[in-house]
Amino acid sequence: MAGIKNASRVKLFSLNSNRPLAQAVAEEVGLALSDASIKQFADGEIQITINESVRGCEVYVIQSISDPVNSNLMELLIMIDALRRASAKTINVIVPYYGYARQDRKARSREPITAKLIATMLEKDQIDRLIALDLHADQVQGFFDIPVDHMLAAPLLANYFYDHHLTEDIVIVAPDHAGVSRARRFAEILKAPIAIIDNRNPEEIERQTESVPEYVIGNVKGKTAILIDDIIDTGVRMAVSAVALKNFGAKEVYACATHAVFSKEAMKKIDEAPIKKAIVTNSIDLPDSKKGAKLVQLSVAPLLGQAIIKIHNNEPVDSLFISAHNKNAKI
Amino acid sequence: MAGIKNASRVKLFSLNSNRPLAQAVAEEVGLALSDASIKQFADGEIQITINESVRGCEVYVIQSISDPVNSNLMELLIMIDALRRASAKTINVIVPYYGYARQDRKARSREPITAKLIATMLEKDQIDRLIALDLHADQVQGFFDIPVDHMLAAPLLANYFYDHHLTEDIVIVAPDHAGVSRARRFAEILKAPIAIIDNRNPEEIERQTESVPEYVIGNVKGKTAILIDDIIDTGVRMAVSAVALKNFGAKEVYACATHAVFSKEAMKKIDEAPIKKAIVTNSIDLPDSKKGAKLVQLSVAPLLGQAIIKIHNNEPVDSLFISAHNKNAKI
Amino acid sequence: MAGIKNASRVKLFSLNSNRPLAQAVAEEVGLALSDASIKQFADGEIQITINESVRGCEVYVIQSISDPVNSNLMELLIMIDALRRASAKTINVIVPYYGYARQDRKARSREPITAKLIATMLEKDQIDRLIALDLHADQVQGFFDIPVDHMLAAPLLANYFYDHHLTEDIVIVAPDHAGVSRARRFAEILKAPIAIIDNRNPEEIERQTESVPEYVIGNVKGKTAILIDDIIDTGVRMAVSAVALKNFGAKEVYACATHAVFSKEAMKKIDEAPIKKAIVTNSIDLPDSKKGAKLVQLSVAPLLGQAIIKIHNNEPVDSLFISAHNKNAKI
Amino acid sequence: MAGIKNASRVKLFSLNSNRPLAQAVAEEVGLALSDASIKQFADGEIQITINESVRGCEVYVIQSISDPVNSNLMELLIMIDALRRASAKTINVIVPYYGYARQDRKARSREPITAKLIATMLEKDQIDRLIALDLHADQVQGFFDIPVDHMLAAPLLANYFYDHHLTEDIVIVAPDHAGVSRARRFAEILKAPIAIIDNRNPEEIERQTESVPEYVIGNVKGKTAILIDDIIDTGVRMAVSAVALKNFGAKEVYACATHAVFSKEAMKKIDEAPIKKAIVTNSIDLPDSKKGAKLVQLSVAPLLGQAIIKIHNNEPVDSLFISAHNKNAKI
Amino acid sequence: MAGIKNASRVKLFSLNSNRPLAQAVAEEVGLALSDASIKQFADGEIQITINESVRGCEVYVIQSISDPVNSNLMELLIMIDALRRASAKTINVIVPYYGYARQDRKARSREPITAKLIATMLEKDQIDRLIALDLHADQVQGFFDIPVDHMLAAPLLANYFYDHHLTEDIVIVAPDHAGVSRARRFAEILKAPIAIIDNRNPEEIERQTESVPEYVIGNVKGKTAILIDDIIDTGVRMAVSAVALKNFGAKEVYACATHAVFSKEAMKKIDEAPIKKAIVTNSIDLPDSKKGAKLVQLSVAPLLGQAIIKIHNNEPVDSLFISAHNKNAKI
Amino acid sequence: MAGIKNASRVKLFSLNSNRPLAQAVAEEVGLALSDASIKQFADGEIQITINESVRGCEVYVIQSISDPVNSNLMELLIMIDALRRASAKTINVIVPYYGYARQDRKARSREPITAKLIATMLEKDQIDRLIALDLHADQVQGFFDIPVDHMLAAPLLANYFYDHHLTEDIVIVAPDHAGVSRARRFAEILKAPIAIIDNRNPEEIERQTESVPEYVIGNVKGKTAILIDDIIDTGVRMAVSAVALKNFGAKEVYACATHAVFSKEAMKKIDEAPIKKAIVTNSIDLPDSKKGAKLVQLSVAPLLGQAIIKIHNNEPVDSLFISAHNKNAKI
Repeated sequence: MAGIKNASRVKLFSLNSNRPLAQAVAEEVGLALSDASIKQFADGEIQITINESVRGCEVYVIQSISDPVNSNLMELLIMIDALRRASAKTINVIVPYYGYARQDRKARSREPITAKLIATMLEKDQIDRLIALDLHADQVQGFFDIPVDHMLAAPLLANYFYDHHLTEDIVIVAPDHAGVSRARRFAEILKAPIAIIDNRNPEEIERQTESVPEYVIGNVKGKTAILIDDIIDTGVRMAVSAVALKNFGAKEVYACATHAVFSKEAMKKIDEAPIKKAIVTNSIDLPDSKKGAKLVQLSVAPLLGQAIIKIHNNEPVDSLFISAHNKNAKI
Repeated sequence: MAGIKNASRVKLFSLNSNRPLAQAVAEEVGLALSDASIKQFADGEIQITINESVRGCEVYVIQSISDPVNSNLMELLIMIDALRRASAKTINVIVPYYGYARQDRKARSREPITAKLIATMLEKDQIDRLIALDLHADQVQGFFDIPVDHMLAAPLLANYFYDHHLTEDIVIVAPDHAGVSRARRFAEILKAPIAIIDNRNPEEIERQTESVPEYVIGNVKGKTAILIDDIIDTGVRMAVSAVALKNFGAKEVYACATHAVFSKEAMKKIDEAPIKKAIVTNSIDLPDSKKGAKLVQLSVAPLLGQAIIKIHNNEPVDSLFISAHNKNAKI
Repeated sequence: MAGIKNASRVKLFSLNSNRPLAQAVAEEVGLALSDASIKQFADGEIQITINESVRGCEVYVIQSISDPVNSNLMELLIMIDALRRASAKTINVIVPYYGYARQDRKARSREPITAKLIATMLEKDQIDRLIALDLHADQVQGFFDIPVDHMLAAPLLANYFYDHHLTEDIVIVAPDHAGVSRARRFAEILKAPIAIIDNRNPEEIERQTESVPEYVIGNVKGKTAILIDDIIDTGVRMAVSAVALKNFGAKEVYACATHAVFSKEAMKKIDEAPIKKAIVTNSIDLPDSKKGAKLVQLSVAPLLGQAIIKIHNNEPVDSLFISAHNKNAKI
Repeated sequence: MAGIKNASRVKLFSLNSNRPLAQAVAEEVGLALSDASIKQFADGEIQITINESVRGCEVYVIQSISDPVNSNLMELLIMIDALRRASAKTINVIVPYYGYARQDRKARSREPITAKLIATMLEKDQIDRLIALDLHADQVQGFFDIPVDHMLAAPLLANYFYDHHLTEDIVIVAPDHAGVSRARRFAEILKAPIAIIDNRNPEEIERQTESVPEYVIGNVKGKTAILIDDIIDTGVRMAVSAVALKNFGAKEVYACATHAVFSKEAMKKIDEAPIKKAIVTNSIDLPDSKKGAKLVQLSVAPLLGQAIIKIHNNEPVDSLFISAHNKNAKI
Repeated sequence: MAGIKNASRVKLFSLNSNRPLAQAVAEEVGLALSDASIKQFADGEIQITINESVRGCEVYVIQSISDPVNSNLMELLIMIDALRRASAKTINVIVPYYGYARQDRKARSREPITAKLIATMLEKDQIDRLIALDLHADQVQGFFDIPVDHMLAAPLLANYFYDHHLTEDIVIVAPDHAGVSRARRFAEILKAPIAIIDNRNPEEIERQTESVPEYVIGNVKGKTAILIDDIIDTGVRMAVSAVALKNFGAKEVYACATHAVFSKEAMKKIDEAPIKKAIVTNSIDLPDSKKGAKLVQLSVAPLLGQAIIKIHNNEPVDSLFISAHNKNAKI
Repeated sequence: MAGIKNASRVKLFSLNSNRPLAQAVAEEVGLALSDASIKQFADGEIQITINESVRGCEVYVIQSISDPVNSNLMELLIMIDALRRASAKTINVIVPYYGYARQDRKARSREPITAKLIATMLEKDQIDRLIALDLHADQVQGFFDIPVDHMLAAPLLANYFYDHHLTEDIVIVAPDHAGVSRARRFAEILKAPIAIIDNRNPEEIERQTESVPEYVIGNVKGKTAILIDDIIDTGVRMAVSAVALKNFGAKEVYACATHAVFSKEAMKKIDEAPIKKAIVTNSIDLPDSKKGAKLVQLSVAPLLGQAIIKIHNNEPVDSLFISAHNKNAKI
C-alpha cells in the first residue's frame, strides 16, 4: 500500500474533539500531527494559534462535530479561518461525525435546516473539500457545492459479523421507517433479509419516549437480529427495538451503528436491554465512563487514513467502499 | 375564504408546461393569468417577451419541470431573468413538479447532484421563493437558502379513499425501501398498517427491469393494498409491485402518487397490471393519449391557489397540511 | 415619546443568553416577546421551533454572544436560519454583547480574525441589520456590509457620575494603550483630563498575569480616578490598574465598563481591589453569584428599546448618542 | 508543433452535441477522448456518469449549445456539476457554438438577456475557463469574469478564398447593419472593400420575412460578393441578400459564416438562392440531411486543438489569430 | 403629467460631476436635492457625509462618470457605501454618462473589460437599479443582473431636426463601422437613408490620427448629412468624417451625439471642421471654455426626471422611448 | 539569502504610482519588471495593455494608492481585471500605501467606510493575496477574507535611531490618542518610555486646525522626543505636536512615520517646525519638490522584496518582523 506523496507539503491537524482518532489517522497516513494551540479563554472564547508555517501546504483538519457540539463546530470554523489567512494552499476538512445532521429538513413549519447552515458556514469559510463518514442522509452531500468524499463504515461493521461467523439465520432490522434503505444496503453485504420496527406513534419517534413498539414488519422469529442505524444517541430506540424484536421471537439482538453519540445514559440503556453487543466505530471519542461491557468499538482510522492518501495522491477512493467479504455488494 | 389582497399589484404567469393547471390556480386565486409570449425560434431557442408591466409587482410563475424537462426548466430560468430585469418586486416560483428531483445525491462515484444544480440555478437567477409540491426527498428544501413552501398532496390523495369508503382492511404499501417513511405518513392519515415491497436486487430498482419482486414485508393477505409513491414514471415499479402484492394474497391493489410522469407506456403498464385505480394529481399535464380507464386525476389547483393567497396575505400555510378526515395525522 | 408603528407586523424574539434584558427591551418598545422554543437535545444540539407565524414580519432578535459563547452564537445563527426559511420580511439582530470582538486582528502570525468570521457568518445567514453596543473596535462595523446601528453606552455610564456628583477633580483613565481613544471620548462627556496605565510588558497584557503596572502616564495624584474600558473580563486588569492608581496617589478609583463578562472570579477581584464601585450595564446577564456589593448595573433596555422604535419608524438614531448632561460632547 | 505536456493529468470529454468535432480535436491534441456515459431517461432527464477518475485532472469538455439547445446546455451544466464534485482540478469548457448568443441585450422592454443568463449559470457552476468561437457580439466576453479564450474562424474562412484564388474584384458584404464591423475585419484579411445590405424594415430583420431588401450600400457591381455573417440560421437572410446583390449587379455571390445553425430548410434556401458556395465551419454538427451541394464545411478542430495545447502549456494563443495569407490583418 | 407619489420617502442626491443637470432633474421630479457634503481632503481622498436621514428612503443618486472619470466613479461608489450603511431602502443610480463604456470587450489580447469591472463594482456595492442613457453598446445592460432602465436620447436629438425642418434630402451617416446600427435606428425616426464612413485603416480608428477617410459608402451627394454617434470625444472623428462627406459631395454636415465628452480641443476641432452644428445633450456638464458657437446642447433633464417619476410610481417607461414626430419608429 | 524559485513563472508589474520603489523591489527579488502599457486617454480614462503573456504565471503587482488616489486605485483594479482575463495563475497585490485607510469606521452617522469598500473591490476583482505595509488600523486586515501579509516598517524606522545612537534619554510620543498602541510597540523596540499629545478638542484633530495642543501626558522634559505615526499627511499634526513637546521641555524632536503622504505644504510645515529630522519610508513616491533638508527616506524595497521571495517560496515571513537591534521586541 503506497504512502503519501510529497509529504513535506502536507499538514494534518487535530482539533480537540477526537484526538485519539486523529493520532491513529496520522499514523495510518505516515505523518506526525502538526502543531496548533487550541484553548479556551476564561470567558469561553476559543483561541487558536497555529505553531508552524502552513504557507502553500495541503492541509487536512480532523474534527468531529460531537458534544460539546457548538464549541467543536466553532473550533473548526475558527481553525479554517486561521489556516486560510495563513496561506494554506488547500483546506480539507475531515468530519468523522457531522453533528446536527438529523436537522436536514423542515420537519415542521418554522424550523431551521441546521445541517445546511453548517454546510453554508463551512463553504463560506472557504474549505476546499469535506471528507465525511456516513452522513445521516445522502442528500447532505448536496448541501455542498465543493467536492465531498463520503466514506462509508458499512463494510467495516459488516466485517465484525463475518469475523464472528454471524452470517447464518440473521435478519437486518431498521429501527424506524427512515432507516430501511440503510438496512437494505447493509443486508446486501451480509446477504440477509430485512425487517422493520414499525413504530406507529410519531410522537414516540422524536427521541423521547421509551414505550416498546408494538409492530415489527418482516420475519424475525428464531433469528439473530442485527439492528442497524447511523447514530446511537440516547440508546432508547435501540433498547426498545431490541425488546420488540425479542417480543416477536428473535433469538438474539445485535445493535450496530457508525456513530456512538451516547448522550445521557445510553450505555446503561444498552447494557440493560436484551442486546448482545453494540458495535460502533470511534468516529466520536467516548470517555471510559460511557463505555460498557457490551460495547465493541471498531476503528475508522485505516479508512480515513487511506482516504487521505488516495485523495492527496489523486487516486479514486472507490476501492474503499468494497467489503472484503462480499465484493459484489453495492453500497 | 378570503381572497387575495391588493390584487392589482399581483401577477400570475403560466409558462408552457401545464397551462390547464395554471388556469385553474388563477381561478382559485381570483386573478386572470398575465400576458407573456413564450415561443421557440426555428433553431430551438426559447424567446420570451412579457406583454404587460410587472414593475413593482409581486409575481407568481407556474411551471412544472416535466417532459420536455430541459426546455421547461430553461423557459422558467429565462422567464425569471426577464422578470427580474423588468423590475418585478418579488419573483415567486411555483413548481408543481420538480424534475430531476431523484438526482438528489451521488448514488455512485462521479455522478452529479442535478436537483441541487437546479436549486443553485434558481437561486442565482434570484427568485424570492419556491413553492413546491411533494419533493422527492424532504432534504431538497435544504438545497435552497430562500424560503420554500413545501406543499403536500397526501391529504388530497387520502380524501379519495375516504370518499370511496376504502378505509377498512387496507394496508399502505411502499413500493421500495426508500419510500417507507412516505408510506408510514400516508398510513397515519388513513389509520392503516404498512407493508414494503422488498426488492433485493438493486439493479432491478434502477427503473429498468420488469421482474416481479419476490419479497413483501408485512401482512397484505386479504387486504386492499394501497401502493403509495411520489412519482409514477414508467409505471413498471407499480405494475410489478401490484403483481407481487397479488402473489402475497392482497385482495385488490390501488396505486397512488402525486406526480404522474407517465413516460413510455406507463398507462398501458398500469392498465395491464392488477391495479384497480391509479390515483394521481394534475401536477403534470397529461395528454389524452397518456390517460387510461384506470386513471383518477385529482386537482392540486385549490391547494396551490390557497397557498398563493395565504403567502401573499402573509398568513401561515399550516392549515393546508391538515386532512379533513383525520385532523390528528401528522404529515 | 412615540411608540412603534404598525406593531402587528413587528416581532421581537429573545434567545437564551439574556432574557431579562430582552423582556425589559420589549416593555420599552411596547410589545410582548414572541414565542419560540429554544432548547438543547441530550447530545447538546440546539433545537429551535418558532411557535407563531413570522411571514412578512419585521423581526428583531435579541441575543448576547456571551458565555457559553459558542452555544449562544449557534442559537443565534440557527434562529436566523429558521426565521429566513419562515419568510420573515426582515431580520434585525440585536447583539448587546458581541463576543469574540477582541479577536479583531491578527496579533501574531497564523491567528484567526474571529470577529470577522462571526460577521461573515451573520451576513451569509442573511440578516438585514445588526444593532450592536460598544463594539471592542469601531472597525468591526466595517466587517459588515449591511447596516450596523452601533449604540454607545457612554452617555449612560457618564450619567452615573453626574447623578452622583462625581465630576470634580476627576481623571479618566485608560487601563491600557489601546483604550486611550475610548478614555478621551468618555473624558469629553465628563469634561475631564485623562491618564493611561502604561504596562510595558506585553506579556502581562495578555489577560493572564496579575502584576501591578509600574507606570501611570498623566496626573492622577489626589484625584478621583475613573477607569474606563469596554469589557471587564477576569477583572484582573481593573484590579491591578486600581492598585497602580493608588500607588500614584489617586484618592479613590471607580471602574467603569459597558460589558461585564465577569469570567472566573472577576467580582471577587474587584471586591478585593481598591475600587469603590464597578459601574457596568446589563448587556450580559449576570447570575447573582457573580454580583457583589460594589457592582452597579445600569440598564441598556431604554437605549436598545428606543433604537428599535426609531429604526422601525425610519427615524435617525443620532439623538440617542447625546449625553443629557453634556450635549456638546462628541461620542 | 509541440504536443501537450503532462498528458496523463489532462482529460478531454465530449458531450453529445458534436462528437465528430470532439474526436477530431482529440486527435489534434494527441489524446483519446475520456469515457463518460451521457444518456436520457425515459422521462427526458439527462443522466451522466463519468467512468474514469478525474481527481486532480485538468479537464476539457467540448459541447456546442446547438439544437436541441436546451438539452445540450443542460448536458453541459450537469457534466460540470459532476466533474466538480468528482474533484477535477480545473474545468475548461469549449463551446464551439454558444447558443442564445443573439439574446445578448434587451431589444425591447421586458425581454431577458439569455446569453448573460447562460454565462451566469456556467460561472456559478464554477467553470475555470471558457473557450469560445466567434461569439455573436464581442461583449459577451464581458458577461464572464473568468478567462475567456475567444477564438476566431476568420483566418480559416479567408483561407478558402485565398486557396481558390478568389481575391480579385471582390467585395465583402454585411447582410445587416449589425454586421458591418465583422465585414470590415474580414475585408482587411482579404484586402477588399465592403458593402452593406440595408434593410430598412426592422420587422423583416427579425428572422421571419423573406422579402428582398431594396437597398445595398456600397459598390457591388460586377464584383464577386462575399456575404459574411457569424451565423446562418434559417438561411433566409443570406438568400434574400444574395438576390439583392444580384439585383445590384454583383457577378456572383458567396455566403460565408462560422456557425451553420441551419434550422428549418436552410440548405434548401441556399441551394435555391443565387449563391455559389456557402462556406461554414463544423462548429455545429450537421446531419447529412442538412448538407447540400453548395456547402463547404471547414474544420475548426486544428484551431481548437492548438488552443487547448497552448492553454494547457501556458503559452499565448495570439498566434492562432493570424491569417497565413495576410499577417498584417488585424482581427 | 402626474407627479411623484409618497415624495417624503424619496431622496434625490447629486454628486459633483453634473450638478446643473441634477438640479434640473430635481425640478422635473418636483423634489429638492437632498443634502450631502462631498469634498476632497488635501491628499485627494474623497470625504462624504450625508446630512439628512435616508433611513427607509428610496434614494436616487445622479452622477456622470465623466472627466475626472476615476474621481467621479469613486465619488459614486463611496456615496453608495454611505447610503447602504445609512439604511437607505433602495439605491437607484442614475448615470447620464457611463464612462469607460467603450472598454466593453477585449479588443486585443490581455486587455481589461473595464465597463464590466464598473458594473461589477456597482453591483457589489449593492445598488438596486441603474438608470443609464445611451450606453455605448446595448450589451452593457447584460453586464448587470439588476434592473437597468436604459434611456435613449434619439427622440430628443431627432426632435432638433424636425423642429428645424431638416428632414428633407438628408442622410444619416455612421462615422465608423461599429455605429451603423445606431445610424439605422436614428434614420428610422427621421425616415432617411444611411451612409457609412469607411475608414479602412484600423489604426486610425483608435482615436488618434486625423487623416481624412478615403471612403464613404452610400450616397451623400447633394444631401444634408447628419453624422450620428453616441460619444464625441476629441472631435477628431467627427471633424474628419465631415471633411470626407464634403469630399463626397454632401451639401452640409451636422454632427449629432448624446455624450459630449469634449476632451482636448474638441470644440475647436468642430468649429474648424465643415460642420454646421454639433447637437449634443447635457449628459456631461461642459464648462463654458468647452462650448463654441456651433454647439447645441439639449437637456435630458425632462427625460431622466420623467423616468424617475415612472420608476418610482411603478409605471412602465416605454412611453419615453417614442418620438413625438414618428411614433412608429422603433428605437 | 536565497533567491526566488522558478523565476520564469513569476511576473512583477509596476503601475504608475511608485515606479522607483517597484524597480528597487524587482532588483531585490532578482527579476526584471514585466512590460505593460498604462496610459490615460484624453478623456481621463485609463488604458492598460499587458505586453507579455502572463498565462499560468504567479503575478505580483506593485501600486501605492496615493495621490492621485482615485486614479491609482482604478489603475490597480483595471490591471487586476486584465490579468485575471489573461489567465494569470495567481494575482498578488502589493500596496505599500493603502489609501483611504483612515476611513476605516463610521466616525459619524451616515458616513461611508471607504477602507472596507476598497477591500471589497479588490476581493471581488479576485485577487489572491494582499501584501500591505503598516495599515492605519490592524483591523483592516479583517476587511479581507483572503490572506493578507501585513509588513511592518517599525524595525526599519527603529534602525535609524540605533544607527544614529539615539537610544538614550528618549521618549516615544503618540501625536494623538488613537496612536498610543503604535507608540507603545515602537517604544518596545527602542526600550523607551512613552508620552501622548493630548489634544482635547476633537475638532482640531480633524486634520484642519493648527493650534498647538495644550496638554502632553507623560514625561518629556529634557528628553529626545520621537513622534511616531503611520502617516504624515499635511504635516500639521507633527508640527504642532513638536511645538507642544518643546513647550513641555523636550530637548529635541524627531518625527517618524511610515507613509509620507505630504499633501499641501507638508515639508514646509516640518521644515519650519522644531523638528530635527523627519524619518519616513519610500512607500509613497515623493517628487523632489516635496522633499526638504530634514527629510530622511528609508527604503522598504528590501523588506517588500524579501517578502515576495518568501511568499513565493512558501516560507514564513515572521523573520522579517524582527528588529536587528532588539530581537525580543514584539511588534
